[in-house]
Amino acid sequence: MQTPINSSPLYKIVNPRSLAIFGASNRYTAMGTNLLSSIQALGFAGPIYPVHPTEKKVMGLKAYKTTADLPEIPDLAILVLPTGVAPEALEECGKKGTRHAIVVSGGFKEMGGEGIGLEKQLKSIARQYDIRFLGPNCIGVANPRHRFNATFLPYEQEPGFIGMASQSGSFITQMFDYLKQSGLGFSTGFSVGNEADIDLVDCLAYLGACPHTKVIGMYIETIRRGREFIDTARSIVPRKPIVAYYAGGSEAGRKASLSHTGALSGPDRIYDGVFRQSGVIRAWSIEELFDFCWCLGACPPPAGKGVIVQTNSGGPGAVAADGCSREGLKLNPVSVRTRQRLAPYMPHTGSITNPIDITYTKNILDYFIKIPEILLDDAETDALLIYFLMSEKGVLRAMEGFGLSGENTAAESKKFIHDQAVAVIDMIRRHTKPCIGFSFSNRENPFIRMLQDNGIVVLPSPSRAARALGAMVRYVRMRDKIMSGTPQEAA
Amino acid sequence: MQTPINSSPLYKIVNPRSLAIFGASNRYTAMGTNLLSSIQALGFAGPIYPVHPTEKKVMGLKAYKTTADLPEIPDLAILVLPTGVAPEALEECGKKGTRHAIVVSGGFKEMGGEGIGLEKQLKSIARQYDIRFLGPNCIGVANPRHRFNATFLPYEQEPGFIGMASQSGSFITQMFDYLKQSGLGFSTGFSVGNEADIDLVDCLAYLGACPHTKVIGMYIETIRRGREFIDTARSIVPRKPIVAYYAGGSEAGRKASLSHTGALSGPDRIYDGVFRQSGVIRAWSIEELFDFCWCLGACPPPAGKGVIVQTNSGGPGAVAADGCSREGLKLNPVSVRTRQRLAPYMPHTGSITNPIDITYTKNILDYFIKIPEILLDDAETDALLIYFLMSEKGVLRAMEGFGLSGENTAAESKKFIHDQAVAVIDMIRRHTKPCIGFSFSNRENPFIRMLQDNGIVVLPSPSRAARALGAMVRYVRMRDKIMSGTPQEAA
Repeated sequence: MQTPINSSPLYKIVNPRSLAIFGASNRYTAMGTNLLSSIQALGFAGPIYPVHPTEKKVMGLKAYKTTADLPEIPDLAILVLPTGVAPEALEECGKKGTRHAIVVSGGFKEMGGEGIGLEKQLKSIARQYDIRFLGPNCIGVANPRHRFNATFLPYEQEPGFIGMASQSGSFITQMFDYLKQSGLGFSTGFSVGNEADIDLVDCLAYLGACPHTKVIGMYIETIRRGREFIDTARSIVPRKPIVAYYAGGSEAGRKASLSHTGALSGPDRIYDGVFRQSGVIRAWSIEELFDFCWCLGACPPPAGKGVIVQTNSGGPGAVAADGCSREGLKLNPVSVRTRQRLAPYMPHTGSITNPIDITYTKNILDYFIKIPEILLDDAETDALLIYFLMSEKGVLRAMEGFGLSGENTAAESKKFIHDQAVAVIDMIRRHTKPCIGFSFSNRENPFIRMLQDNGIVVLPSPSRAARALGAMVRYVRMRDKIMSGTPQEAA
Repeated sequence: MQTPINSSPLYKIVNPRSLAIFGASNRYTAMGTNLLSSIQALGFAGPIYPVHPTEKKVMGLKAYKTTADLPEIPDLAILVLPTGVAPEALEECGKKGTRHAIVVSGGFKEMGGEGIGLEKQLKSIARQYDIRFLGPNCIGVANPRHRFNATFLPYEQEPGFIGMASQSGSFITQMFDYLKQSGLGFSTGFSVGNEADIDLVDCLAYLGACPHTKVIGMYIETIRRGREFIDTARSIVPRKPIVAYYAGGSEAGRKASLSHTGALSGPDRIYDGVFRQSGVIRAWSIEELFDFCWCLGACPPPAGKGVIVQTNSGGPGAVAADGCSREGLKLNPVSVRTRQRLAPYMPHTGSITNPIDITYTKNILDYFIKIPEILLDDAETDALLIYFLMSEKGVLRAMEGFGLSGENTAAESKKFIHDQAVAVIDMIRRHTKPCIGFSFSNRENPFIRMLQDNGIVVLPSPSRAARALGAMVRYVRMRDKIMSGTPQEAA
């Protein structure tokens, strides 16, 4: 069922070799200029042709009076024009031979009135010239690996593994910085706008085929092609998890969606059914959407629902256990053999029931390496949730205890934290069971930052870690069901 | 029912004029030394008397061989000693005349076996000498306004307005940094440990009477005195909100609590009933606990459940609306008069249904001042949720549009962001309706940081903002019910 990625209508939209941009000028406050700034800032490698009726140069680039003047047929046209003139510009592109466009301009169907007619006009021009387009009323796309960011905000991190398709542009651009807060990034992000031509299902298919996308996130206010959504999702889920936030399920969410994108949302239970049939994991907030994507993209899938919680703090351990229990996960006791293997590392204050509460370790590497390795070895363990507490101040104090002072302390403490992180990263990478970290520290903490920057998931609380593990278990269950699916289930 | 704060057994425990510490030495890795470091680091003003059998000086302070040698009767004794010698040390304190103690030492009832007998011994000594003590098996207390931090981690922010009583020490010390991530801090924090003498209810009463505590947070694994908990909470709730996270409600949470503090937890529904009777708001995660405390402590209470969502991004607005709806809040349409007053500030792309989606504003002050003022003026508005998006990069680009460049741009952009923040802070402070901000930006964003540092709530997502507003509305409902309570409800 999987089609090659370059046969997708979106392929040239996010991998253009050349592009024309309409609506950029030398006026910095213009939306088109802003979008062109983003494209230039990320260092798009191909030629960019600004089309402008009067300017000779736009943002340092040679500008062209008309589309007909362009020296080649651009792969992609980006329209950031007033509503009324967008259809004509699209037609000029069609005449030139361009077959792909992003219509950023708003004021179409979402505004009602004559906007409806103008959107029909766009569609009929597109049909006439065989143009596939994204939008209108979208904020564009970002494909950082292609160094292509055609949106209004700068993309300043490495490319990531999360592919995103969103019925709100905010959940593309405003997530650049949000994801950066966890060391994450997008593989490719699509803002679909009014979906006059290309829609969410096309994005899903593209991201399903995209080799850099390990997990797909979606922000949904409405699904316009239910049957195709389900079929496409089911064809992807065996290879790649899909996570969706659906905003239209509540009364106020439905109304908000209607005025936002003209979306006709359905009640929660309908969408729950669609997601279940599709094998799509439902998230209940934007932070959950990305927590789930993070774990599903970065960790191996759990074989079952047996989880071990490892902690050195009773409270965070209890909260993790409470959260796991509410997710339907099982905190099995460890085996007698595991118990025996753990014994040398457990102080008398420690607790060997699950959560495994070490309380303290004389050798901190025991906590980060030996103990989790023993726990991951236990046959009952399908996943490990591990609490990460590494107070810089605590380490400094301990260093002083070894008689170090001043600059030496700072350097040794930095080295100590670095070495611990290297060991943890190596340990987790060696295992094929998911190991999810949680901590109340954020990336200001160098230990946490280093783990996250090396592909280790560290979620910001025990409850969020438990929720995310629950989502992973649901993914595996739905995936397996689809893979062994009866025709009835597929219907 | 409210007793004066200085008659609380905890008064001298968190406001000592002088203290003796047992277990601190010149060995930096010793727990007692660590705790003394924290006390010294925050600059405790009173005399500190280390008691040590051999050292002449401990951490630069004159040390005393025995308690009897101390030059005065210390207000407070802090015991960080091995289990076996703690009772004897407590007895020496009793003989000296000290009437308050914190027993940090573990290895008592929570370990079973002879620990049970040792805890009984502690209690009987305390009774004999009229000593009130916190612990054993706790991590101490923090009262930053008194510059007193007797815990294992440094307290490095300003005193805050959240009073905390916790059955896990982690949710005191490890929250110092966590709260700092939002510009918050504790008024006073208590780790209660095994509650052999002073318990959660005593902490609740103290925090209820504490003039610097605007809201009380609790981490609960078990409530040992149900009747007193309910009565004490009910006496506080009319003046001050109480928020609790209860870890023992699930099967795994119950087991974890049992092995953590020997707590015998009850099922969720029992605790739900206790919380409802007490007027205590239940939080479902640690982050919710502090989100709720933040809003309840920093904002005026909402008069009803009518909320207006103001946004300039459709998606975050729709998610906020969806979240509010799920909390049972009402997104009423604005009145005709409000609609008319808004008209001059709304672009044609904007939506005047609730969420009020401004989309963009020519004058950004309209978004931050004029529009929220009009919305807060509407009689149907009990609370405003407002989306804060202020991209530094976006501002820089706009500044370049005014022909500025280089250093000028940076300075002007800084000034612009600063001035906007000042105006927003002033606007929100002038109103008596709660105005809760939400943003996906964190404190690395100077606008967000400045708002938070000036008492404005900015939560990290629309869903969390909606949840917190829901909690505020529940607080008001429960408070009003208690204030007009029938004797049956009080029973």
